[in-house]
Amino acid sequence: MKRVIHISVFFQTLENLWNQKITPQEAEKQLRQLLYEDLDFAKIDHHRALRKGFPEVVFCQGKTQDQIITILKKMSEQYPNLLATRVQPDHFLAVQKEIPDIQYHPTARLFILERKPAEKKGCVAVISAGTADLPIAEEAAVTAELAGSYINRIYDIGIAGIHRLFSHLDQLWQSNVIVAVAGMEGALPGVVSGMVGRPVIAVPTSVGYGAHFQGLSALLTMLNSCSPGIATVNIDNGFGAGYLAHLINQLAEGEK
Amino acid sequence: MKRVIHISVFFQTLENLWNQKITPQEAEKQLRQLLYEDLDFAKIDHHRALRKGFPEVVFCQGKTQDQIITILKKMSEQYPNLLATRVQPDHFLAVQKEIPDIQYHPTARLFILERKPAEKKGCVAVISAGTADLPIAEEAAVTAELAGSYINRIYDIGIAGIHRLFSHLDQLWQSNVIVAVAGMEGALPGVVSGMVGRPVIAVPTSVGYGAHFQGLSALLTMLNSCSPGIATVNIDNGFGAGYLAHLINQLAEGEK
Amino acid sequence: MKRVIHISVFFQTLENLWNQKITPQEAEKQLRQLLYEDLDFAKIDHHRALRKGFPEVVFCQGKTQDQIITILKKMSEQYPNLLATRVQPDHFLAVQKEIPDIQYHPTARLFILERKPAEKKGCVAVISAGTADLPIAEEAAVTAELAGSYINRIYDIGIAGIHRLFSHLDQLWQSNVIVAVAGMEGALPGVVSGMVGRPVIAVPTSVGYGAHFQGLSALLTMLNSCSPGIATVNIDNGFGAGYLAHLINQLAEGEK
Amino acid sequence: MKRVIHISVFFQTLENLWNQKITPQEAEKQLRQLLYEDLDFAKIDHHRALRKGFPEVVFCQGKTQDQIITILKKMSEQYPNLLATRVQPDHFLAVQKEIPDIQYHPTARLFILERKPAEKKGCVAVISAGTADLPIAEEAAVTAELAGSYINRIYDIGIAGIHRLFSHLDQLWQSNVIVAVAGMEGALPGVVSGMVGRPVIAVPTSVGYGAHFQGLSALLTMLNSCSPGIATVNIDNGFGAGYLAHLINQLAEGEK
Amino acid sequence: MKRVIHISVFFQTLENLWNQKITPQEAEKQLRQLLYEDLDFAKIDHHRALRKGFPEVVFCQGKTQDQIITILKKMSEQYPNLLATRVQPDHFLAVQKEIPDIQYHPTARLFILERKPAEKKGCVAVISAGTADLPIAEEAAVTAELAGSYINRIYDIGIAGIHRLFSHLDQLWQSNVIVAVAGMEGALPGVVSGMVGRPVIAVPTSVGYGAHFQGLSALLTMLNSCSPGIATVNIDNGFGAGYLAHLINQLAEGEK
Amino acid sequence: MKRVIHISVFFQTLENLWNQKITPQEAEKQLRQLLYEDLDFAKIDHHRALRKGFPEVVFCQGKTQDQIITILKKMSEQYPNLLATRVQPDHFLAVQKEIPDIQYHPTARLFILERKPAEKKGCVAVISAGTADLPIAEEAAVTAELAGSYINRIYDIGIAGIHRLFSHLDQLWQSNVIVAVAGMEGALPGVVSGMVGRPVIAVPTSVGYGAHFQGLSALLTMLNSCSPGIATVNIDNGFGAGYLAHLINQLAEGEK
Amino acid sequence: MKRVIHISVFFQTLENLWNQKITPQEAEKQLRQLLYEDLDFAKIDHHRALRKGFPEVVFCQGKTQDQIITILKKMSEQYPNLLATRVQPDHFLAVQKEIPDIQYHPTARLFILERKPAEKKGCVAVISAGTADLPIAEEAAVTAELAGSYINRIYDIGIAGIHRLFSHLDQLWQSNVIVAVAGMEGALPGVVSGMVGRPVIAVPTSVGYGAHFQGLSALLTMLNSCSPGIATVNIDNGFGAGYLAHLINQLAEGEK
Amino acid sequence: MKRVIHISVFFQTLENLWNQKITPQEAEKQLRQLLYEDLDFAKIDHHRALRKGFPEVVFCQGKTQDQIITILKKMSEQYPNLLATRVQPDHFLAVQKEIPDIQYHPTARLFILERKPAEKKGCVAVISAGTADLPIAEEAAVTAELAGSYINRIYDIGIAGIHRLFSHLDQLWQSNVIVAVAGMEGALPGVVSGMVGRPVIAVPTSVGYGAHFQGLSALLTMLNSCSPGIATVNIDNGFGAGYLAHLINQLAEGEK
Repeated sequence: MKRVIHISVFFQTLENLWNQKITPQEAEKQLRQLLYEDLDFAKIDHHRALRKGFPEVVFCQGKTQDQIITILKKMSEQYPNLLATRVQPDHFLAVQKEIPDIQYHPTARLFILERKPAEKKGCVAVISAGTADLPIAEEAAVTAELAGSYINRIYDIGIAGIHRLFSHLDQLWQSNVIVAVAGMEGALPGVVSGMVGRPVIAVPTSVGYGAHFQGLSALLTMLNSCSPGIATVNIDNGFGAGYLAHLINQLAEGEK
Repeated sequence: MKRVIHISVFFQTLENLWNQKITPQEAEKQLRQLLYEDLDFAKIDHHRALRKGFPEVVFCQGKTQDQIITILKKMSEQYPNLLATRVQPDHFLAVQKEIPDIQYHPTARLFILERKPAEKKGCVAVISAGTADLPIAEEAAVTAELAGSYINRIYDIGIAGIHRLFSHLDQLWQSNVIVAVAGMEGALPGVVSGMVGRPVIAVPTSVGYGAHFQGLSALLTMLNSCSPGIATVNIDNGFGAGYLAHLINQLAEGEK
Repeated sequence: MKRVIHISVFFQTLENLWNQKITPQEAEKQLRQLLYEDLDFAKIDHHRALRKGFPEVVFCQGKTQDQIITILKKMSEQYPNLLATRVQPDHFLAVQKEIPDIQYHPTARLFILERKPAEKKGCVAVISAGTADLPIAEEAAVTAELAGSYINRIYDIGIAGIHRLFSHLDQLWQSNVIVAVAGMEGALPGVVSGMVGRPVIAVPTSVGYGAHFQGLSALLTMLNSCSPGIATVNIDNGFGAGYLAHLINQLAEGEK
Repeated sequence: MKRVIHISVFFQTLENLWNQKITPQEAEKQLRQLLYEDLDFAKIDHHRALRKGFPEVVFCQGKTQDQIITILKKMSEQYPNLLATRVQPDHFLAVQKEIPDIQYHPTARLFILERKPAEKKGCVAVISAGTADLPIAEEAAVTAELAGSYINRIYDIGIAGIHRLFSHLDQLWQSNVIVAVAGMEGALPGVVSGMVGRPVIAVPTSVGYGAHFQGLSALLTMLNSCSPGIATVNIDNGFGAGYLAHLINQLAEGEK
Repeated sequence: MKRVIHISVFFQTLENLWNQKITPQEAEKQLRQLLYEDLDFAKIDHHRALRKGFPEVVFCQGKTQDQIITILKKMSEQYPNLLATRVQPDHFLAVQKEIPDIQYHPTARLFILERKPAEKKGCVAVISAGTADLPIAEEAAVTAELAGSYINRIYDIGIAGIHRLFSHLDQLWQSNVIVAVAGMEGALPGVVSGMVGRPVIAVPTSVGYGAHFQGLSALLTMLNSCSPGIATVNIDNGFGAGYLAHLINQLAEGEK
Repeated sequence: MKRVIHISVFFQTLENLWNQKITPQEAEKQLRQLLYEDLDFAKIDHHRALRKGFPEVVFCQGKTQDQIITILKKMSEQYPNLLATRVQPDHFLAVQKEIPDIQYHPTARLFILERKPAEKKGCVAVISAGTADLPIAEEAAVTAELAGSYINRIYDIGIAGIHRLFSHLDQLWQSNVIVAVAGMEGALPGVVSGMVGRPVIAVPTSVGYGAHFQGLSALLTMLNSCSPGIATVNIDNGFGAGYLAHLINQLAEGEK
Repeated sequence: MKRVIHISVFFQTLENLWNQKITPQEAEKQLRQLLYEDLDFAKIDHHRALRKGFPEVVFCQGKTQDQIITILKKMSEQYPNLLATRVQPDHFLAVQKEIPDIQYHPTARLFILERKPAEKKGCVAVISAGTADLPIAEEAAVTAELAGSYINRIYDIGIAGIHRLFSHLDQLWQSNVIVAVAGMEGALPGVVSGMVGRPVIAVPTSVGYGAHFQGLSALLTMLNSCSPGIATVNIDNGFGAGYLAHLINQLAEGEK
Repeated sequence: MKRVIHISVFFQTLENLWNQKITPQEAEKQLRQLLYEDLDFAKIDHHRALRKGFPEVVFCQGKTQDQIITILKKMSEQYPNLLATRVQPDHFLAVQKEIPDIQYHPTARLFILERKPAEKKGCVAVISAGTADLPIAEEAAVTAELAGSYINRIYDIGIAGIHRLFSHLDQLWQSNVIVAVAGMEGALPGVVSGMVGRPVIAVPTSVGYGAHFQGLSALLTMLNSCSPGIATVNIDNGFGAGYLAHLINQLAEGEK
């Protein structure tokens, strides 16, 4: 691991000093630099560690086409796998011109570069309440998938027809973690958590109207769930849910 | 009906005028008086009409013991049945001293005078999610009961154990209307409405903490329910729900 | 009824087993399948039960033209009556091309397929405060109408001219249930409920500006009404109000 | 008027300078002092002007008994009439000990000193929806009364029994301005304004529960009223409403 | 006055009955009709009374061009003076085609028909804090002007340069009532009310950004003003402020 | 596992039927009963499954001492381990009288019965920002501990002294999951998640004042964290966070 | 300074009076005029004083192109330096036609006229969390720069990679004041303030989504920061932050 | 300075290694330890740096008497000057028993230990709008005073009597920075900032009622101020304002 390597770089400087190959002043300079580089280095290192298997991610909302191309191009030269979230369809042609092997996932609103597909292990269930929640559910599913999780998609099982869940209970028990996406009243995650002993990551969506207040209603429902195996991410944050789900799935598959 | 009687009073004046038993001036005076009395009269009449079988109701929150005693005493002389809501236990002895046959319902926080019990007809189901919702559920149940509905109480069936509802589906189908009381995430009314084709009156309660915001979360959940047979009353408004439930029950039993 | 039929299917399997026409293993398979099919089946069955007379409904907001056409076409092959809510006018031609006998209701923003008109029985009053509330009021009215209620439309009687209500009191008393639609201050439902002893379904609309906060003000007014015969649906939820009104109307007409 | 007097003081200095009774330096000092004193003076002067007939007012909420006594005692030596708002009953004895002729108004939560009662002229109507709104309604009524308005109190006419208003329409038309106090749904001011062509000052109260949010609901209702002759003061601000009502009443009676 | 006339119509029926020109049945019919017509009639009558001098008003926001033309054309045949608020510029040509003498006020976003200009009496001051508040300030000013008030416009005197107010104090004292329009922090009305003893109608505007929350900040500032002579209307409600200001101005000029 | 057992019970009935030991009618009765018992049974079974190792939990807030004693006593006869959350200190003596071996944890506000301590495996880190967050942090820690997790407590490392985190990075990396508890600005979870590649369960607390709005500020901060490995529970919900953390820890230790 | 000059003008009048060059009446007129002119004059004077070195500023949001051109043209004739904030790119050509030497800063959305560049002194650090916060950060930076501060820009150091701050600590200590701009969770200012003993002006931005509520989340985070050296400006108010930062920088450089 | 010392400790290790007084292993251990100690050390060091002259501070709200005594006693042994904020009067005797020379400031709700009074330099103005804002204003004043600022207290100058400010303008110009404390409408800071070219730290207080929403109204007013020299702290955060004011005052007096 990089952290080990880094310590040996640190040690090397001390050895060089001991052997008087460098002066204390030079050592100090190297070590101080290392002290900070260490932190910078740690940053990359530990990002690598944090993101074992994760593609690099760019949040595109509010960025211009030019900014997105510049960032993605630079990153595509460094990293084999990239994920650009909240993209606009009309940016795709221009991006593809620069990175020909990039792909566009219209439902999940993602650009995906996947040159070294992650080896898949363990299963994440992604379930959603309504058709309109699909973009967020797919954002979660594709994120975890690219990172190396198998995905079990179970869509359109809102609590108005809650009994439908029964035929899927086994699938849910076979997953390590469940991402439950719902707008409107947002009750799905609580119901599922009451039936399946797996961590549930609740994703409120902005799907609704009136007193839904752009997702606030679904968010509050999820935060107030009586079922204790739930935690909630931001409204419409499919990416965050998929990322966290993969992190838990990795742990459950013995990768730490 | 009173409205009919009233019209005949109106007509009587006209007849008296026609028969010149009264002068046009007297008639005008009588009729104008009637015009207003009519409205006042209508008020009582129509309150009678509105509240067929309903006890008179006094909302006690924020009133002093003296005010409550004065109001209840005066009303107990006019009406056989009374309902005092949101009462404080320590007011009971003083109230009872003035109205010896008044009763105290501690869970529902009600004082009840029931000298002419209403004849019961048709069934209202009152269901609740948690033990802490009982005061509101009982307020609804006792209100509808006094007004003349049979009550089917099904308590403590929150959606964390949603499958328990199955053993009660028949009971729910046999009721004309369902009052569904829930705090926390407030998902119970939506789930029930998805399983039983009866009007559901949703009552959010202030039971919860943190992002529950004194019932706001449960209220929003109910308003945003995907199941279309629901309407919602104010947070903790058990009385309003019981009243409306009885109104619907009466209609379903053919009383209009 | 299906639920009865289903039980006999269940019984048939047991008989076959008893008669050793099938093995216990086959019976288990059949019964377990039935167990789940039962639930799935129940779903349809009970939706049928829930929706006696109701057309199938598709909520179109946030769906693409292609999605809407696909869903409506498939449903139009199964069900005689359909209701598509929150439609966009410019989708109509394309939808009509696939389902030639579908109709467009511009004020209520509905597509309607009505091959087997429901037999009408009992009356629902739909009243509204202002001209701008018409789309929501009509959504409620058409929904209840298609489901089999006679509709009594009384529009433009906001409380700024509250006395106008008097000439309509008889009409309101002749209805089984009242849908009261209002934006701005939203006081209409409370006033009506104080004058007519019928269940009032209050529909706040987003019509207003400034401190109206997209319907929040009207919603809160309705939830806080002093008149106890009211319950409220989500802002702009005309469909939900019409559906619930018809449910109550059916009960009042003796259909359970 | 003081403003006139002040100008002559200003002029006096100039005359003294012209007559060389004072040096330019002295004049500058006097005038500069006057410049600022003017502002200070204006403050008192114009407060006198602003408050023609108004008693001096002390807002007691959040002040200790000692602070209140000190302030009231000092003011009672300067001004004949005083109004202390939001007082606590248990402060009265101590206050009375220092100012024996001060009076306590328990419903309106006021201490009143009225040594030179204002001459009364013109009428302010103060109407309220419920019994629990009385403290605020009385705060408004007593404020305007002390300042010199006749008060027409019409209490307990909430919109649940809106027809009762009819018998009071003449009284309302005979007032110059109407203070309409309401909690719960807060619809009273809008209804009254739709029937009487007088300025209506709407006072939302914190009387309610649940989605009333301590008066927010009533406040929003009043701000969103469709009737254009209304303006609203802060929740529970009976004093402000009474003050403004008297100001308008004075104008209507020809005092400017 | 109409109300008087109406009573004589009422009396006429009674006389006819007395004189047996009509039967009691006919009298009843006439009188009952009158009873309701009375209310309808009263409505118009009293609207006339309420709006002495006021033009008829149409709120155009959310109405289509066709609806606006239809309404305005019909009204222009009945009433000499009309005010259409919140209009869109591009509707003007079409409206003008139907009502050639209608005028367009671009800043105030009004269409104005003024065939019988009201006689002007008494002065309303309309003051505003910033240039961006002009549309609302002008809406208030033109509304009161058409109704018969002289207007004293003092614009662009926000509290960042509060000392500018001093040179306008006399103008403000000479007005009967002040409409104070402000967005951003909304402090202007409170400051003015502290300096001038006239009723102040505060109009918060949606001018601002960030934590202004579309006018909420300015609204709250005005409701919480320490100066007691203020009441507040809805955010951006220039029309309501102008209407109320004229109502007060009329009273101050002795017209009741 | 129970679910397996249950299926064999199901099978047994079929075998008995096959062998004609029972009639089809008896079988139907048994199987239908099973159908529902199944659900009820499943409930317990699956609760057992959901809560492998978890103590039974009673939420005591808003319950009376009598209710708490009754519930805990009954449960203590069925289950070896119990957790009562949000308890009041003064209830302890009375509870202990009935259940002598129950313990009181004052900081975490818990009553604990632990007759069969769970075998511990894997580590959960519980970190908190300030001293005042301790009750919530301890609630989380004790919950996960009783359920069978080792706990690594790192308290009082708010981001005002963020560099202190560095000396704890190794401890955090050695935990499977991190519960991060913070009030005030609530930034701790986001910072930790940016440095350690472990799932972070964020717990906002109501510790703060003013614009903290009882925890809303910390809640929003956590939901909006830029670091993707975070999910959030309700304000002050230490129990829910501890429960979920243990669930993830179990998975990471290979128990599913 | 102007304030001094003004006083001598005041004195001049007194001298002229003393010398009887003018009559007391003339003196009074002059002095009263001066009294008000003084205030007007003071306004400019003191704006000059307030804004030593600051360019004149025009807030363009919500103004039309014509209004902006008129205002800028007039001001460009009076003042050498101008700053127009929140401009639209497509207004630039038209503005430039009138003021050829005006410049456009696209990121900061500013038009800048800088004919007499301020002499620079002392350093303001402007730091930002994300790329999307750049427009606000640049608005702050350019504002302070034009006013005469050196700017130290450190962008893209959000707390997800908080360790990056370490390499910039010296730069931050060398600045007199820090403007910290952040959207999303908004934690950057609190972290920086915990590490550097300089006043921190926190600028929340509207960058975020869902429960960010257009900047509310970041705003609350900053207001609730545990680190005491912070104060916050309105959401997206880069100009205000830059202005205040320069004010503090000036003080720190000895200019008062 | 400590940071310098620390670097020489770092250098010392390198010298020892060079001189082979220690082995590379020992050096590594020392340096790594230093690496972390450095951070811990830096923390203290830099807190010392951050807080030059500032007393140590303990926020007492929500802490028990025992916790407060323990913390204060320990700190009183390390630091000469202490400030305990938000204290309760009844804790004082017990605290004083342990730390006899500690003092209690009842208005500001502070315990103060001041064994080495800071040398005072430069002036901070603390102004407040109303008497009820005194506790917060005094908290700010005493905080800055203990830290070494002269304080200019100007209380009770709310904008209802805004002209009073004129007589204090010179005092305000003579201060380096102004802390402006206001509840209710909160307009004072904006008005002052428009008249005095000094940084204004705005402190909203929770003084108010109704639509004040515990300080939200004043907070929003201050954030939306049109005057650009303002920044705002949390509601009732007098300590934070005093701390920041002293920080700016120090800079203005040449101490960095």
